[in-house]
Amino acid sequence: MPVVVRRRKRIDARVIGGFQPFGVATVHEAQGRVGLMAPFMRPVFNGAHIVGSAVTVSVPPGDNWMIHVAVEQCQPGDVLVVAPTSPCDCGYFGDLLATSLRARGVRGLVIEAGVRDVQALTEMRFPVWSRHVSAQGTVKATLGDVNLPLVCAGTLVNPGDVVIADDDGVCVVPQEHADVVLKACESREKKEAAVRDRLAAGELGLDVYTMRETLAARGLTYRDAEE
Amino acid sequence: MPVVVRRRKRIDARVIGGFQPFGVATVHEAQGRVGLMAPFMRPVFNGAHIVGSAVTVSVPPGDNWMIHVAVEQCQPGDVLVVAPTSPCDCGYFGDLLATSLRARGVRGLVIEAGVRDVQALTEMRFPVWSRHVSAQGTVKATLGDVNLPLVCAGTLVNPGDVVIADDDGVCVVPQEHADVVLKACESREKKEAAVRDRLAAGELGLDVYTMRETLAARGLTYRDAEE
Amino acid sequence: MPVVVRRRKRIDARVIGGFQPFGVATVHEAQGRVGLMAPFMRPVFNGAHIVGSAVTVSVPPGDNWMIHVAVEQCQPGDVLVVAPTSPCDCGYFGDLLATSLRARGVRGLVIEAGVRDVQALTEMRFPVWSRHVSAQGTVKATLGDVNLPLVCAGTLVNPGDVVIADDDGVCVVPQEHADVVLKACESREKKEAAVRDRLAAGELGLDVYTMRETLAARGLTYRDAEE
Amino acid sequence: MPVVVRRRKRIDARVIGGFQPFGVATVHEAQGRVGLMAPFMRPVFNGAHIVGSAVTVSVPPGDNWMIHVAVEQCQPGDVLVVAPTSPCDCGYFGDLLATSLRARGVRGLVIEAGVRDVQALTEMRFPVWSRHVSAQGTVKATLGDVNLPLVCAGTLVNPGDVVIADDDGVCVVPQEHADVVLKACESREKKEAAVRDRLAAGELGLDVYTMRETLAARGLTYRDAEE
Amino acid sequence: MPVVVRRRKRIDARVIGGFQPFGVATVHEAQGRVGLMAPFMRPVFNGAHIVGSAVTVSVPPGDNWMIHVAVEQCQPGDVLVVAPTSPCDCGYFGDLLATSLRARGVRGLVIEAGVRDVQALTEMRFPVWSRHVSAQGTVKATLGDVNLPLVCAGTLVNPGDVVIADDDGVCVVPQEHADVVLKACESREKKEAAVRDRLAAGELGLDVYTMRETLAARGLTYRDAEE
Amino acid sequence: MPVVVRRRKRIDARVIGGFQPFGVATVHEAQGRVGLMAPFMRPVFNGAHIVGSAVTVSVPPGDNWMIHVAVEQCQPGDVLVVAPTSPCDCGYFGDLLATSLRARGVRGLVIEAGVRDVQALTEMRFPVWSRHVSAQGTVKATLGDVNLPLVCAGTLVNPGDVVIADDDGVCVVPQEHADVVLKACESREKKEAAVRDRLAAGELGLDVYTMRETLAARGLTYRDAEE
Repeated sequence: MPVVVRRRKRIDARVIGGFQPFGVATVHEAQGRVGLMAPFMRPVFNGAHIVGSAVTVSVPPGDNWMIHVAVEQCQPGDVLVVAPTSPCDCGYFGDLLATSLRARGVRGLVIEAGVRDVQALTEMRFPVWSRHVSAQGTVKATLGDVNLPLVCAGTLVNPGDVVIADDDGVCVVPQEHADVVLKACESREKKEAAVRDRLAAGELGLDVYTMRETLAARGLTYRDAEE
Repeated sequence: MPVVVRRRKRIDARVIGGFQPFGVATVHEAQGRVGLMAPFMRPVFNGAHIVGSAVTVSVPPGDNWMIHVAVEQCQPGDVLVVAPTSPCDCGYFGDLLATSLRARGVRGLVIEAGVRDVQALTEMRFPVWSRHVSAQGTVKATLGDVNLPLVCAGTLVNPGDVVIADDDGVCVVPQEHADVVLKACESREKKEAAVRDRLAAGELGLDVYTMRETLAARGLTYRDAEE
Repeated sequence: MPVVVRRRKRIDARVIGGFQPFGVATVHEAQGRVGLMAPFMRPVFNGAHIVGSAVTVSVPPGDNWMIHVAVEQCQPGDVLVVAPTSPCDCGYFGDLLATSLRARGVRGLVIEAGVRDVQALTEMRFPVWSRHVSAQGTVKATLGDVNLPLVCAGTLVNPGDVVIADDDGVCVVPQEHADVVLKACESREKKEAAVRDRLAAGELGLDVYTMRETLAARGLTYRDAEE
Repeated sequence: MPVVVRRRKRIDARVIGGFQPFGVATVHEAQGRVGLMAPFMRPVFNGAHIVGSAVTVSVPPGDNWMIHVAVEQCQPGDVLVVAPTSPCDCGYFGDLLATSLRARGVRGLVIEAGVRDVQALTEMRFPVWSRHVSAQGTVKATLGDVNLPLVCAGTLVNPGDVVIADDDGVCVVPQEHADVVLKACESREKKEAAVRDRLAAGELGLDVYTMRETLAARGLTYRDAEE
Repeated sequence: MPVVVRRRKRIDARVIGGFQPFGVATVHEAQGRVGLMAPFMRPVFNGAHIVGSAVTVSVPPGDNWMIHVAVEQCQPGDVLVVAPTSPCDCGYFGDLLATSLRARGVRGLVIEAGVRDVQALTEMRFPVWSRHVSAQGTVKATLGDVNLPLVCAGTLVNPGDVVIADDDGVCVVPQEHADVVLKACESREKKEAAVRDRLAAGELGLDVYTMRETLAARGLTYRDAEE
Repeated sequence: MPVVVRRRKRIDARVIGGFQPFGVATVHEAQGRVGLMAPFMRPVFNGAHIVGSAVTVSVPPGDNWMIHVAVEQCQPGDVLVVAPTSPCDCGYFGDLLATSLRARGVRGLVIEAGVRDVQALTEMRFPVWSRHVSAQGTVKATLGDVNLPLVCAGTLVNPGDVVIADDDGVCVVPQEHADVVLKACESREKKEAAVRDRLAAGELGLDVYTMRETLAARGLTYRDAEE
């Protein structure tokens, strides 16, 4: 029974905004190395970095009708997350839909399928992460669902989850953990800054992280080349 | 029996030139969603957009001899379309062949195999769409055909067909339909411009395309989140 | 028995430096079309071109501990070459390790696995060729080897071999052949320059390379189109 | 925080057993075309057909320690479902683990990674669906989770869900829908049996499903060949 | 404009039947190493070997409606050849459609997409070559074409072409060349039988094919191991 | 400079024969989890298990000339190992070459490319492990090398190395370690037999391998389901 769920609550915009300084790798580590989409999800152009609240769309292969339906459910600060019910490389999305999403304040698109009009998307600077680039057109014949949980690129996404995307890929933070993960990001970033300074100064990670003893205990041996 | 077919007629250069304003997605839609090469055909550098008349080359795996043969059959405004007789990621084409094609006025290369010297190709701005990038060298030992019909990246190409390529990929328009497809492109573009303006102004696709009734008729339901 | 081999001799830095003018395609051809890594090895950003002496690291899937160990064995002018013992797309390497390698004068990284922090790597201009881009974190639990021979992306690499990488991919020159291959590069480049000039002036490869007779002898036929 | 959840309730064994007559295609259709794992999940030998209650295991790449932990949580009638936290083709599972699972009454294994000893598994007739076959060994160094929800081959699996697997692949029925889906299977099978008889007798699907009118309404045209 | 072309002429059944003794490799060689579908086309069960006249069906991704339409156009001795307009791994075909095709005397199915019910297909011994096995259901919403030329697995197929399929894959012989190719098959098979006897008796291919001189002329050298 | 190295010494046939009882997984573990070819190397038919001494052949893409050359260098007990210089799925090998190899006592073929005539190979029970099955023909135009070291499916193979292959894939034991690895196989097999008996009797791996303490020390926690 195809359904569109309306009026999904978003979490506090300040929490979502709090993630803006952090890249995908930091967020993924901070929440315990989970929530990362498969690495075949690539940005259409480099250098974008977005954070937003997920609106989810489940679409049939080769049919983008439900994306048009989903646009109406979007608010400023949202990210559209689209997954086909079976793998498909068709171009579900192009510059017209991007124009429409931008008009509603949507921050970007994450889609485990194809997109097209990438020169236009690049000129508009509308951020898109997709599995494929393809001009192949889609039909508008079969329904799907909006704002139900779905699996996108191997990761479970619930509507309202926090989506972070940059050149490393796409990470999803369950909304109920957003506060905790945000704090973990801040604390991780602080530690990394200190480590970065020491490494830049020429210290070795072996010493910064005090690994030498554990390595020896695990049986690592050193020998000189006999050349 | 390997053969080179000479003096293939090209269609009217004004018709071919007429396609220049239109991207691959527009042309593909305008001719009824056919003629698109597989999406693994990617540009060597972004931002190129070419239109031209196909010169076709069928090559053995790992052997680029026939590309040298084909150069002689090229005229200004042509696009070279190369397909191996079985899949191959070797680097069939580099800056020397690009220099030679440019000297003959060829607009670009489409090859379902590998190319190399991509830094040089990028600096020359010689447009190439390929399946692979690889420096792997090829031999010159076995013959193939020039200007016979072939299948390239899943699409039938006849010599003289119109080839359009941009960052979305590569589309082929059979020469006998070029006039009709060109008109369809023009008409489609006009309609899209009007739609784009309405979407940019905040109207929904649901309304612009009057989809609400059909969606309801197909059984789409709406409910509010219970959170 | 995991081992780190120290004090591997590097070959004369002037020989290594001699390769700097030559791209991967030239070097690969000059040494007889061998030594090229598989074409799935792609640069994280375009336009880099490095030459250096290989420090090799064998790592378990999902475990980057040995990269930290390997940093200590690096000298200015080295290139780190990392291969997992079974295929893995995890992000083994990011901006902290890049900071550390740069502090030691390492010229770049070649890794048949994933890397992350690619926006930071791009800003730092630290050159990386990898099989994947992924933020997926790794553990530090299992040992591997440093400076033993390994197979990376289908190519045998011995510690101290010369590694050349550019936008075409990655090529490895065995250290014992470096002198000979370097000379072959210089001679090849000279010949190509002359050919390039002739092709740019409109001469055909068929004539420059005097192919017409051999083609005819092999049975190539020409016929005019009957359109 | 790695955790093993014990004493997960299983649903009524008679409900699970009720699925035994139905293949994966039937169950997948009966629950509305959802719940199917990706088609890269293939049986190690043909002809197996199992139904059971899922025990889930999340494992690091290249590390099968948690499978040993999970065995203790298995009961007769269970199916072990294993997913790595990032893609891995290592051989996590072989004849020793199969011996252990069989001793506990486990009906089979579903794993989005590699398995080995396939000749022994085939002789034992221990059913396995996997993404890869590979002898590559794994370590026992890093923890994971048992009996938490996970995504396996693109499908969400909760511990206790019903798993159906045959030569078509693997389908998952959420335990809370098992009753309803089971009834839908029975009713679907009845309808199909009637249709099968009519088709075998030479009736056309066009007539059995009364498609002709709809096809015409959508614009399907017929013409005779002009040969 | 979706169309079904009726009453396509088949070539003489005796010519088609003449191919029955020959495997795909022989036919492919006999017609000059062309016409082979991509090797991802695999039989659902091993040991089948069919020859027939192609009925072609172009289908949208995830939509098998036109297969039902095509059944009506089939005659005894036909082979159904199905290609999606963009790549799709859905299960377009199962035991009901096989029952229907068998009732019409169709010899088998060739489909560049997925099929399901493979245990039933195997028991029925209904031969199928497909790109995927998947239970994923399809819809019946969008039209396609029957008996127009199409590209299937990289090969152009015209309705009425001769299709040969065995465990090596699928080969297509254009109907207008069927006579000539059939004779070439017979002559090739005779030669091979003689060669097979000589090789089985211990003669070397080097001598049977008198290759030694050419190899030497090309520069092949022999040296003894220095171990 | 293409070369054929003759009269490579084989190691003691009794050592090679000693490996016959052991599968690929056992040998791979016994030599420290190295030497395994990539898992895309699959047997043409199931149930074969061979051991032999490697004769190596390096071939150009789409050219099988050197296999004919290599046959002459084979002795009873050898295994032919073939790798293309760049990836190729052509059918390099069929029933004629198998007939020739069998006449010389060769035990099987390992090839990182395609093979054909698989129905004939299966009937002959000539064991083949390949990356692809394809009828695509090859030419005989370009030379390669016989009995030089090469990388096949990601693994370095020296002529004379011991090759073990079964349904799990292909493993290579360097000839100089064959004695040591053979002893390690025997000792491993003994230990596994004892473990197998205990597991079959219902003991848990957790206890057999005494893992409980280490798991607890690493932080594994247990909790009961709250359902």
